[in-house]
Amino acid sequence: MAKLVFADFPVGRRFDFPSRTLTADEIVAFASEFDPQPMHIDEAAGRASILGGLSASGWHTSAIMMRMLCDSYIDRTAAEGSPGVESMEWRKPVLAGDTLSGHVTVTEARLSRSRPEIGIVRFVAEVTNQRGETVAVCDYANMIRVEAEEMMHAPG
Amino acid sequence: MAKLVFADFPVGRRFDFPSRTLTADEIVAFASEFDPQPMHIDEAAGRASILGGLSASGWHTSAIMMRMLCDSYIDRTAAEGSPGVESMEWRKPVLAGDTLSGHVTVTEARLSRSRPEIGIVRFVAEVTNQRGETVAVCDYANMIRVEAEEMMHAPG
Repeated sequence: MAKLVFADFPVGRRFDFPSRTLTADEIVAFASEFDPQPMHIDEAAGRASILGGLSASGWHTSAIMMRMLCDSYIDRTAAEGSPGVESMEWRKPVLAGDTLSGHVTVTEARLSRSRPEIGIVRFVAEVTNQRGETVAVCDYANMIRVEAEEMMHAPG
Repeated sequence: MAKLVFADFPVGRRFDFPSRTLTADEIVAFASEFDPQPMHIDEAAGRASILGGLSASGWHTSAIMMRMLCDSYIDRTAAEGSPGVESMEWRKPVLAGDTLSGHVTVTEARLSRSRPEIGIVRFVAEVTNQRGETVAVCDYANMIRVEAEEMMHAPG
């Protein structure tokens, strides 16, 4: 199947995320390795915190968002990664049992000045919960090839 | 032991990170779950990419940075989490076998206008590799209590 290329990302194009329910075990496993603050690894500490329950590390929510980006468009795109993110907001707690979903929208598309075979596409991704509340927002860019690799190596 | 509070974070204070060597297995495990792009899960695809080897997902590097923040100051601080990050740059690839380290510096400290018991402390974290190159930079804020909880509940 031909991969999506720069021209397939006009400003305004939107990709919807699959939904995923987050378990307490997943929250604790991620946090134990990367962010062992009490509200992320202990149910009682979570309930006692301002977050109101066992809550996912913000970086866990971001990692789940990344997987949703892969599943919604990156896996089928001639993408060359990202130099980073402009901003990553964690607006509301993500608690055990929450079902996450969301979407990502193209906000800007331009060719690279230094590498004309590459386009820079900027996106805003929004992760939502089962109540339709936005829990996380990420403003970032991807480098996306103007032509898929198969085309670039074709004869002629 | 008394926890660190807002007053312990003057502008310019720096905390050094412990060092940690990242294995190929760790890179593949994280990416398989959260960022299954070929250069993060397949050695040959990594070598063929512009990254030059099996490379960690940027979000993996960020998660490792978060653990370094916990180990260097958050675990012993009266911290109340973060509303997100201002920017997260992935400046250079992190490859299997790289040894990461780095430091975090306070860049701004002010009291919250809406919650006077809370200070807002802004930091810049830099993750470096074994050659002293900066691989990731994160500009973010933490909410930190002005007085540790034990003090707030003390009689009188």
